[in-house]
Amino acid sequence: MDELVNRAFRLRGRPAGVADEAALELVREPVGELRDGQALVRTLVLSVDPSNRVFMSEIRSDLPPVEVGAVMRGFGLGRVVASRRADLPVGAHVLGMTGWQDYRVADDRELEGPFQVLPDPLPAGPEELLGVLGLTGITAWLAVEIADPRPGRTVVVSAAGGAVGSIAGQLARERGARVVGIAGGADKCRHVVQELGFDACVDRHDPRWRELLDAATPDGVDADVENAGGEVFDHVLTRLGTGARVALCGMIADYSGDPARRWGVRNLVEVLEQRVSVRGFLVTDHAQRFGEITGELAARIADGRLRYEQDVVEGLENAPEALERVLRGSSRGKVLVRVG
Amino acid sequence: MDELVNRAFRLRGRPAGVADEAALELVREPVGELRDGQALVRTLVLSVDPSNRVFMSEIRSDLPPVEVGAVMRGFGLGRVVASRRADLPVGAHVLGMTGWQDYRVADDRELEGPFQVLPDPLPAGPEELLGVLGLTGITAWLAVEIADPRPGRTVVVSAAGGAVGSIAGQLARERGARVVGIAGGADKCRHVVQELGFDACVDRHDPRWRELLDAATPDGVDADVENAGGEVFDHVLTRLGTGARVALCGMIADYSGDPARRWGVRNLVEVLEQRVSVRGFLVTDHAQRFGEITGELAARIADGRLRYEQDVVEGLENAPEALERVLRGSSRGKVLVRVG
Repeated sequence: MDELVNRAFRLRGRPAGVADEAALELVREPVGELRDGQALVRTLVLSVDPSNRVFMSEIRSDLPPVEVGAVMRGFGLGRVVASRRADLPVGAHVLGMTGWQDYRVADDRELEGPFQVLPDPLPAGPEELLGVLGLTGITAWLAVEIADPRPGRTVVVSAAGGAVGSIAGQLARERGARVVGIAGGADKCRHVVQELGFDACVDRHDPRWRELLDAATPDGVDADVENAGGEVFDHVLTRLGTGARVALCGMIADYSGDPARRWGVRNLVEVLEQRVSVRGFLVTDHAQRFGEITGELAARIADGRLRYEQDVVEGLENAPEALERVLRGSSRGKVLVRVG
Repeated sequence: MDELVNRAFRLRGRPAGVADEAALELVREPVGELRDGQALVRTLVLSVDPSNRVFMSEIRSDLPPVEVGAVMRGFGLGRVVASRRADLPVGAHVLGMTGWQDYRVADDRELEGPFQVLPDPLPAGPEELLGVLGLTGITAWLAVEIADPRPGRTVVVSAAGGAVGSIAGQLARERGARVVGIAGGADKCRHVVQELGFDACVDRHDPRWRELLDAATPDGVDADVENAGGEVFDHVLTRLGTGARVALCGMIADYSGDPARRWGVRNLVEVLEQRVSVRGFLVTDHAQRFGEITGELAARIADGRLRYEQDVVEGLENAPEALERVLRGSSRGKVLVRVG
């Protein structure tokens, strides 16, 4: 094993703005010999998510920030290629924090939690297991539960063309609500309406997007599946009706570690006056429901009720650029990096 | 009746900042003759609340804004002095939207809802019926229910020396939580700790108030009874622990109708990452619980568990200045104006 070389992205420093490729450095390092209790996991596919950006900052979250100099944290699907521990046998496919690297030495001291061994053969493609049938789809499901869409209600979904938003909007529509997306670009809006069945979509890049959202929600907004944060959320607040519900699943605009670079939200008084409930949640808190929810999602994919898109980038070296596209909203659907 | 003169504050224009006396004008107008179905209510005591400021703005709320030129909306206790309707007999004491005026003609078309006839004799003083045993005390009770204080938890109460905050802090402490107030001025802080039993209080006027709050909440904050909004709330967000609860009862800093004058909140990402639930509520939605909650509060006053202060201003003409003191945080306890 000692001739094996690992390519890894290490954090050079905390990024200043929202997206900042320069914060990551690709290094080549020898993979040392395994000790007892360790296994070597080859990264096959990485999930690229806004939360990667959170880990690069000093924002408090469920996991501590990635230390400067450490390997970039990332969730992925891998295969065990060498092992000195019985629970991770060679050949097993695993899900977990592979990190942004070719190989991870898995021992029992992982900060990010243990690897989960997948059934053999895999129940779905690696991309699906990281996307629509993984944390992404489960996040969308949980958000829709919080939003509680029903016939007669209007649900707004921001970052509607993104991984979570595109699934959440379809699930909300299935429950009978009128679903209005907010997405970056006319193409993405068309896709969301024509392919995914949203009732309407507002192009965030149109300078009149606020008026367009007002016009698209003439009866106000009963629920918001919030993936964007910042000025989008600030304006959505002004459309909320009495007793509205906000599922806070993402705040991409606010992932700079420097609060001064974030949008100052000025319409929170609407939360009070409209008696709104805002719930922040992280999918990782709900592991006991993953099986049930994945089953619901798989059934909807099987019968065609749920559509999804995957944007697969080839090569570990392109992971930072993939993240930048996610954060800038220029990606569509779930973004993944094929590594191995 | 036609020689009777009504003094009334009418809204001259929308105030610009948070507090703005010039927006109100005291006029003298004859009280016309009562028609069938009308009664004349003499205002005895007015409740002065941050919500008065909301009604002066164009902020969306449960009631539409007071129209420019109209009599200022206000909740008060009055007595029926003339009547041509059976349900409001002469001599009855009533609670309701008297407005900021000496007399109100009550008919069935009141935008603000009907008057509630009180038992005779009154079950408590008029000031208490508008304060600790009225909407103020009930708001505090509901906020504490949302905050769910328990032994081992830390609850922050902003505007802790104010009408709602001072009651809420005592109720939270009764449930066993550690209660940290935030109040404007060292005197108010001393009062909150020494007289009301808060565990600690941070002086908002101290330039180091943020560090002081951090030091007073070494284990983070499990619940926030938010009465201030703005920069106070923005910093409290950074102290919230996992699963924290925010009861949004007031956002005094945000009651300017002009969003540009409000504090831009930059730490909402904490709501997501700490999986916080934020609930805005208005006491008026919970009328079916008023009797039960008033009973709870009355029992606590009777046995000395609950203390309260009243700041009674004499004379209708001083109502705008009283509101200004409430909004600037220079009052203590419940502010009322004795009119009749």
